[in-house]
Amino acid sequence: MELQKINSPKMIKQLTNKELEILAKDIRKFLIETCAVTGGHIGANLGVVELTLALHKHFDSPTDKLLFDVGHQAYIHKILTGRSDAFHSLRQYKGLCGFPKRNESEHDVWEAGHSSTSLSGAMGMAKARDIMGENYHVVPIIGDGAITGGMALEALNHIGHDQTNMTIILNDNEMSIAPNVGAMHNMFTRLRTNAHYNRFKNDVDGVLSQFPMMRKTADRMKDSVKYFVMDGIFFEELGLQYIGPIDGHSFEELEEAIELSKKTKGPSIIHVITKKGKGFKHAEDDMIGTWHGLGPYKIETGEVIKSESVGKSWGSIISDELLKYASEDRRIVAITPAMPVGSKLTKFQQELPDQFFDVGIAEQHAITMAAGLAAVGMKPFVAIYSTFLQRAYDQLLHDVDRMKLNVIVGIDRAGLVGADGETHQGVFDISIVAGLPNTVIMMPKDAFEAQDLMKTAIEYNEGPIAIRYPRGNSLTSVAQDYVPSRVEIGTWDYIVEDVNSDVTIITYSESMIHMAIEVSQLLKQDNISIDIVNARFIKPIDKTMMQTITRKTKNIVVIEEVIKHGGLGSIVANYIVDHRLSNVLDRIGIDDVYIEHGDVPKLLSDIGISSEQIAAQIKKMMND
Amino acid sequence: MELQKINSPKMIKQLTNKELEILAKDIRKFLIETCAVTGGHIGANLGVVELTLALHKHFDSPTDKLLFDVGHQAYIHKILTGRSDAFHSLRQYKGLCGFPKRNESEHDVWEAGHSSTSLSGAMGMAKARDIMGENYHVVPIIGDGAITGGMALEALNHIGHDQTNMTIILNDNEMSIAPNVGAMHNMFTRLRTNAHYNRFKNDVDGVLSQFPMMRKTADRMKDSVKYFVMDGIFFEELGLQYIGPIDGHSFEELEEAIELSKKTKGPSIIHVITKKGKGFKHAEDDMIGTWHGLGPYKIETGEVIKSESVGKSWGSIISDELLKYASEDRRIVAITPAMPVGSKLTKFQQELPDQFFDVGIAEQHAITMAAGLAAVGMKPFVAIYSTFLQRAYDQLLHDVDRMKLNVIVGIDRAGLVGADGETHQGVFDISIVAGLPNTVIMMPKDAFEAQDLMKTAIEYNEGPIAIRYPRGNSLTSVAQDYVPSRVEIGTWDYIVEDVNSDVTIITYSESMIHMAIEVSQLLKQDNISIDIVNARFIKPIDKTMMQTITRKTKNIVVIEEVIKHGGLGSIVANYIVDHRLSNVLDRIGIDDVYIEHGDVPKLLSDIGISSEQIAAQIKKMMND
Repeated sequence: MELQKINSPKMIKQLTNKELEILAKDIRKFLIETCAVTGGHIGANLGVVELTLALHKHFDSPTDKLLFDVGHQAYIHKILTGRSDAFHSLRQYKGLCGFPKRNESEHDVWEAGHSSTSLSGAMGMAKARDIMGENYHVVPIIGDGAITGGMALEALNHIGHDQTNMTIILNDNEMSIAPNVGAMHNMFTRLRTNAHYNRFKNDVDGVLSQFPMMRKTADRMKDSVKYFVMDGIFFEELGLQYIGPIDGHSFEELEEAIELSKKTKGPSIIHVITKKGKGFKHAEDDMIGTWHGLGPYKIETGEVIKSESVGKSWGSIISDELLKYASEDRRIVAITPAMPVGSKLTKFQQELPDQFFDVGIAEQHAITMAAGLAAVGMKPFVAIYSTFLQRAYDQLLHDVDRMKLNVIVGIDRAGLVGADGETHQGVFDISIVAGLPNTVIMMPKDAFEAQDLMKTAIEYNEGPIAIRYPRGNSLTSVAQDYVPSRVEIGTWDYIVEDVNSDVTIITYSESMIHMAIEVSQLLKQDNISIDIVNARFIKPIDKTMMQTITRKTKNIVVIEEVIKHGGLGSIVANYIVDHRLSNVLDRIGIDDVYIEHGDVPKLLSDIGISSEQIAAQIKKMMND
Repeated sequence: MELQKINSPKMIKQLTNKELEILAKDIRKFLIETCAVTGGHIGANLGVVELTLALHKHFDSPTDKLLFDVGHQAYIHKILTGRSDAFHSLRQYKGLCGFPKRNESEHDVWEAGHSSTSLSGAMGMAKARDIMGENYHVVPIIGDGAITGGMALEALNHIGHDQTNMTIILNDNEMSIAPNVGAMHNMFTRLRTNAHYNRFKNDVDGVLSQFPMMRKTADRMKDSVKYFVMDGIFFEELGLQYIGPIDGHSFEELEEAIELSKKTKGPSIIHVITKKGKGFKHAEDDMIGTWHGLGPYKIETGEVIKSESVGKSWGSIISDELLKYASEDRRIVAITPAMPVGSKLTKFQQELPDQFFDVGIAEQHAITMAAGLAAVGMKPFVAIYSTFLQRAYDQLLHDVDRMKLNVIVGIDRAGLVGADGETHQGVFDISIVAGLPNTVIMMPKDAFEAQDLMKTAIEYNEGPIAIRYPRGNSLTSVAQDYVPSRVEIGTWDYIVEDVNSDVTIITYSESMIHMAIEVSQLLKQDNISIDIVNARFIKPIDKTMMQTITRKTKNIVVIEEVIKHGGLGSIVANYIVDHRLSNVLDRIGIDDVYIEHGDVPKLLSDIGISSEQIAAQIKKMMND
């Protein structure tokens, strides 16, 4: 069957396992070739080719509900639901989203991006089905990393108690983004490696394969329970029927397990072992690093095609500084919720393993563990993506900020992130963190200032302090011998200052300051002179500078790559109003919208954030 | 020993178990008498008298770290650490806090209020100890309800993997705030009621009690493992040594278990069975309802002394409306994270059990389960305290708002809550929720409008909608035959409108509107006329009304009982600045502080929110 001809999962229902195997091969080839151009989460998807085919063969989407946890492993699902034609546009501006999207297909019944939500979503759907007297299967597909996220465990606790019908697919590829940590992971390893599993694989499977018809009878099914249900006592204790572990690349084992779960009364969990990157050597060999989610690559060598850039990645700039200080002070420790690679902490992990904690997908625990460390005099640094910090808002408030503990929060991926799209844009953090009474928020304008602000954070002992930094690389390269200096809390800095400026642009971050400089150059043609202020502290703001600015130029523009609500623009507006000033202020930022995936400059331009549009807006401002 | 003379836990270390029993009796008497006047979480504390005494006898606080999860069960800890003298001021304005407080005592090493944080805090302290080469015990005390919170499970996953030394006390009183739900609860019940436990209690304990000295030897200790370690396979699977279950009112069993855990390498969990309300009949008989946390009561009868009030509780007003609609439409369901009593949903639960879900202490799951329900066409209502909604911020954003699902969020306990203090004030919700692109936020001015807004929420089908309501009772009583009408989204309402008003007060909530009316009456003496606008929609704001208001009166005052950052005052300031208006605006609300416990009017007055202070501020505004 040609991939491009598949416009509905119904088309694969009649395929034999042999035919499915051929199709699986075609899909792998298609994925490897397409993602070589588009980039994407190739490794995770190569691991679930057979699983996704089996799910669509044995369940009836969209009547039966398939919920992909995180959602970056739904490429095959997209192909089988008629989207292979659009696949070349994956993760591109206005193209296919890298995650399930309700407006792309009726088969995308659940959207995600953040981890560990599928079990709760599935529970909602299952209870809706029960209440309305309907009859369909609800099938969340969740990884061994995602299932350790707190909200997934909350859901398991409820599902096991309620005993409604549900088939949970535990997709165990032995790593989420980094190798999994945690006691549950150890338990999964025990399950995978126990003697029963090997016996099952070698003996039982061998026997069954000689008598395929036996599987079809209900009696045989019942008997097979004793082969499938082994050792999953953890899940049994939680009230779930455990089925597995099974080989996630065997259509026969998948079929058997799925059919068994469909006949099971109450919730069951099928433990499926898959291999991330399966069928593409380069991805199989390096599942953690570049091959989790990546840009375009060369198929022959697996070499990632790098974009040109001068400086180091922001993550490295921050982590290298952290390592420097931590080497000299054991009180300084690093915590990451499952992102050692993404947050560039692997060097720290290797050099100071005792001061390093990868806590797994557990943002809440990461932040509150930092509170515990700080409560007894340590100086923890938590590296956390802006979008994932959302999940630890209460912990940052209740456990860190309220107790005024000396925790440094490294807000990674601050601002737009591009291809990952709306679930991953780092645009809400300022809005929520600036509302916390005690937390300082900073963002460096370049690699040098990043070092200054890291020194500032390390030496700050009056409560929590957050340093934001974006995805990607800095435009400035760092001199090896740069000696950072501490910056006074709440001080801003003129980047461009003219005697007779007409307008002041207040902004922060390397990219926005560069944009402000472009704006200023564009406006020179019109004889409009611009002051540019680096608001490296988003909280507290520099009140002395605000006084200077509001006196010097009537017109003020704040530019920021976050939502306007609670952003710096709003803080400046409050200042103007509270001080009864008559300055004219334009707040440029993100209105009430979610920003989709694509090229960041294009996305910004769509919402009015480009040097041309801002220059035009300033001209209008001055003419009004 | 006289309670008042205890100024350090060292003083109880030499007491025999017999003497401890006498002291326990004295403590119970003291608690019952004091809380009769102050109110408080009497039931939970009566359950842990022996446990707390045993912990302070066998551990050395503050060198050893005792972390009380939630923290409302720390009264005995407060008494033993020299605070019995101040106990009459418990939960009163400027008095002892109802939760551990670092600035009250060096023995309060961890603060809480929200549930499920102690294990993460303990993990931080334990790793700090390991890294710094110190040697002390870390002892989180967590309830059977709190341990099912997602972040506690995240922490368990990390603790079991890391294998650092820690003694976790699982205080199992078979209910948290309501009877516990969930698969873990079922598991605990199995543990409690299994044959081994009874054998242990009847036989082993009997034998041991005849030879108390045997307990002291290490060999005996080792042997006793086989009696203690039974059936706790769930925890064993997670890498924790399970000890129990033991009788939490027996000093001997407590001693044996604690000493065993101290000798255990790696983390252990002692499963302690306690009886909430132990020793006070009225509390034992009704552990769920009024006796969880309550105001003053009569000791003889257990009757709660009610404050005078005209109307129904806000929770009842909302829940009764919900029940009315849900009775007629099965799509309407109610979800509570362990607060069926607090949120007044017990009647709903009884009448429509199939449409009701108490998911336990699991705010994240509650909100995302609602998303799952809404994704397939249901109309879920999640009742959640403002302060606990903080824990589901990402779920509200990522799973509900982003997918624009028809979920109704009942934000209960919005505004100051009084005696529970800074961890429970409902003052951050608007700041964070108003930043979500799609969620409508409303708050009714009285019981009638509450019904109108509930009808509005039920009939709204364009995404999420939140209705805020405060703690306590409404000032208006509801007429039985009132027929609610739908309110147009984003519309405000003049409460007081004068032809020649000088100032407009924009506010929301019954209490703030009443305060505005008082302000207006005070200012009449000065011939200052005030318009009062009911901003029943905090988002979206009423732009037509804003146009009218800003044209009509130069002076505008926004009053609100939430933090200013991201509040309505800030939204109005943005409007004024964005529209280049010259109105003068005073934003009255909560600055960058946490509000402690005490009488709400006093607390508000401390931060400038009283009719007198606001009247004075308006006079000053007009004179400037």
